[in-house]
Amino acid sequence: MTTQQPLDHIPVLDKGFVEVLDVMGDDNAIVAAARVSFLGESKGPDRDKKLLFYLMRHDHGTPFEMVVFKFRVRAPEVAFRQWVRHRIGSFNVQSRRYTEVDETDYYHPPAWRMQSESNKQGSEGALDDVAAAQLDARLEEVYRACTAAYQDALAAGVARELARLFLPGFAVYSTFIWTVNARALMNFIRLRMAPDAQWEIQQYARALWGVFQARLPWTAEAFATYQLHKAE
Amino acid sequence: MTTQQPLDHIPVLDKGFVEVLDVMGDDNAIVAAARVSFLGESKGPDRDKKLLFYLMRHDHGTPFEMVVFKFRVRAPEVAFRQWVRHRIGSFNVQSRRYTEVDETDYYHPPAWRMQSESNKQGSEGALDDVAAAQLDARLEEVYRACTAAYQDALAAGVARELARLFLPGFAVYSTFIWTVNARALMNFIRLRMAPDAQWEIQQYARALWGVFQARLPWTAEAFATYQLHKAE
Amino acid sequence: MTTQQPLDHIPVLDKGFVEVLDVMGDDNAIVAAARVSFLGESKGPDRDKKLLFYLMRHDHGTPFEMVVFKFRVRAPEVAFRQWVRHRIGSFNVQSRRYTEVDETDYYHPPAWRMQSESNKQGSEGALDDVAAAQLDARLEEVYRACTAAYQDALAAGVARELARLFLPGFAVYSTFIWTVNARALMNFIRLRMAPDAQWEIQQYARALWGVFQARLPWTAEAFATYQLHKAE
Amino acid sequence: MTTQQPLDHIPVLDKGFVEVLDVMGDDNAIVAAARVSFLGESKGPDRDKKLLFYLMRHDHGTPFEMVVFKFRVRAPEVAFRQWVRHRIGSFNVQSRRYTEVDETDYYHPPAWRMQSESNKQGSEGALDDVAAAQLDARLEEVYRACTAAYQDALAAGVARELARLFLPGFAVYSTFIWTVNARALMNFIRLRMAPDAQWEIQQYARALWGVFQARLPWTAEAFATYQLHKAE
Repeated sequence: MTTQQPLDHIPVLDKGFVEVLDVMGDDNAIVAAARVSFLGESKGPDRDKKLLFYLMRHDHGTPFEMVVFKFRVRAPEVAFRQWVRHRIGSFNVQSRRYTEVDETDYYHPPAWRMQSESNKQGSEGALDDVAAAQLDARLEEVYRACTAAYQDALAAGVARELARLFLPGFAVYSTFIWTVNARALMNFIRLRMAPDAQWEIQQYARALWGVFQARLPWTAEAFATYQLHKAE
Repeated sequence: MTTQQPLDHIPVLDKGFVEVLDVMGDDNAIVAAARVSFLGESKGPDRDKKLLFYLMRHDHGTPFEMVVFKFRVRAPEVAFRQWVRHRIGSFNVQSRRYTEVDETDYYHPPAWRMQSESNKQGSEGALDDVAAAQLDARLEEVYRACTAAYQDALAAGVARELARLFLPGFAVYSTFIWTVNARALMNFIRLRMAPDAQWEIQQYARALWGVFQARLPWTAEAFATYQLHKAE
Repeated sequence: MTTQQPLDHIPVLDKGFVEVLDVMGDDNAIVAAARVSFLGESKGPDRDKKLLFYLMRHDHGTPFEMVVFKFRVRAPEVAFRQWVRHRIGSFNVQSRRYTEVDETDYYHPPAWRMQSESNKQGSEGALDDVAAAQLDARLEEVYRACTAAYQDALAAGVARELARLFLPGFAVYSTFIWTVNARALMNFIRLRMAPDAQWEIQQYARALWGVFQARLPWTAEAFATYQLHKAE
Repeated sequence: MTTQQPLDHIPVLDKGFVEVLDVMGDDNAIVAAARVSFLGESKGPDRDKKLLFYLMRHDHGTPFEMVVFKFRVRAPEVAFRQWVRHRIGSFNVQSRRYTEVDETDYYHPPAWRMQSESNKQGSEGALDDVAAAQLDARLEEVYRACTAAYQDALAAGVARELARLFLPGFAVYSTFIWTVNARALMNFIRLRMAPDAQWEIQQYARALWGVFQARLPWTAEAFATYQLHKAE
């Protein structure tokens, strides 16, 4: 079998998605790994859940590395560029040295968020409808001009790796495979679901958080209690 | 379910083992991850295998990180001490601050290997039967004396974490959970199955290599061809 | 003191550079770290160099992690995007959520390399002068149109993080700090100075290789002998 | 020059030490790295310190990776075994496959801590003087018997890697080189200076914390404020 059917498919933004390809382990696998410290046996789900909460509260991280997720994701460069900074985990990424870009590969934002006054790297509010419609049209125009120039360069024989200089690079979607353990995934969710993260990557973090809650309900509850909601 | 049944159990040394607790992915998962570079689809197993060999030959390592193994291992400290130096992967380890040691926890070597002349950190040949029997008896005597002192210390109320100073520490078996991706596992096998590795850890590396060959036959074949047998 | 004077500044591409901000250790630090295995003392430079060559030949990697470089680099996204995939090392990166882009931030290639026939992700040869001049003009035009649209969006109050959708993202230069040990740096140089790497990042790898040779002459010689020139 | 003079030497436990071999960077290097995000220049030490505190408070970790320490440490196995579990950083370690052990290599605890009732892996209080003197004598006796058996095995030609089964392994001191960035070092200090860490490794963590405070006074103050004293 060669094309793996995703276990779950969550649309994100206008053309992106998060797909769950595989998951190794569950809440019990975390507890079982922790119990190897004292070669203990389970004394039932209540005690298991209590142990899991203890691990989270005291920041005993390694048992949470024993659960591993594999995702297929499609995300625009504005989000991917931040994603790939997470070093604990494995990426295989669509290469624009191999594959051509066309107009189905661009991100169109649902609103034009305005520059935040208080947070120099953030946004708040949005342009009104009239201004937004003008900017949408302008974006479409730029995307068209860039794509035409890119295609002319390719037609002239220019290498894909170089022709992409013509492209609106931050808008281009790429597809990638991401294998990541539950501990590193919690770190991603905490940082990227935070209100100061770029809105686009927040949407992906929310999709991942939904998967996480469904797959690791005890861990999600403990994480929400001790980590997520204490982060300022 | 709380005590995970191992998928496979391989005895190693006199009292150790390697158990396969879980495996995420197979040869096809590696090929599928690599194909995301060019968003390609499988063109059948022959082409898939060829692509996998190409990846190995050209040292494209990340697709091999997409397969993850989880093992439970019991190994004596002489082997564990080297094992835990491998930083890519996750360990949960039996703690001798929690659990007591008794005489079922000691390693007895099957032969007394002699100091290598040519390799300052290696061994070669073995003591003859008479000398070996004497040393076996001596070892038993030391293990007994150490254990008695350890137990007396515990009886006097000394903390386990400190009483272990009395123990023959390099001989003590511990149980641990190890989650590791296929790329890091190949690195382990290459280094620890090599003739200059300590004989004890070589036995574990062989057990892991057997699991690897059964689970990832194409990858094992490619690894043997391009990496294992070219290492000097 | 707040602005660190670079120890070395190497121009790369039309507007980029590699600067050496700091280096911890030298060839002797590598040898001294390796000698801790047997608590040995130096027996003079000849024996030290021989030991270093032994380490490289037998792939004993950890002593090479004991030398650490800190660089400041300015590179266009086509190179940075590949750079940041190297997970062993630390990055701090100029953020385009904070800083605006202007026309001094774009990369102009010195030639228009053509798509390789044999290597689907590579390039070979270049457009002739007439075709190249046309494409240079086209690129200038695209850069101008993109920048104008970007500036209009900013003027309308759009957040920088979103306005950058208008930009020719792959061409935009960013500045970053990179701290990396000598082992990981050798890995970078081997992969990114290879002929199948994108030409732009090859130029950075060459600059880094020059620094490496000057700072770690024995290690560079051993690396060239056993690793670099055996890589296919 | 081949034997590096330590910049600082701090005795720890009865026979151990922490030596500072090298340090790359200081508080200003951290601030300068952070400022690359917005290509900012320093506006004086007050603002610099304020920025550093901001980084720590908001858990912006990467700038703290830009300072790197290199230590030489001598520690008994009870501490080393926990130390080496820290995966971010580089170790070169004295090998007992190369070097012989003698009676100068054993740890003697200053007191016999008692098993904690409340913390199953901890200790509290200590044996009284009479009981302690008895246990000291017993330990000496075990160390002597173990060493004698070890030496007899070596004399019979047994390989060092195997003869060490006779040794009181948890008591044996080893020397190692450890290169670690300031972020990972803070993590070590936080976990290993905590009251539930084994007392022996707490002593090393305190020595490292002293070095840290002297070298990175602003970072140490911020770390103490936001991380160390909020950890339970």
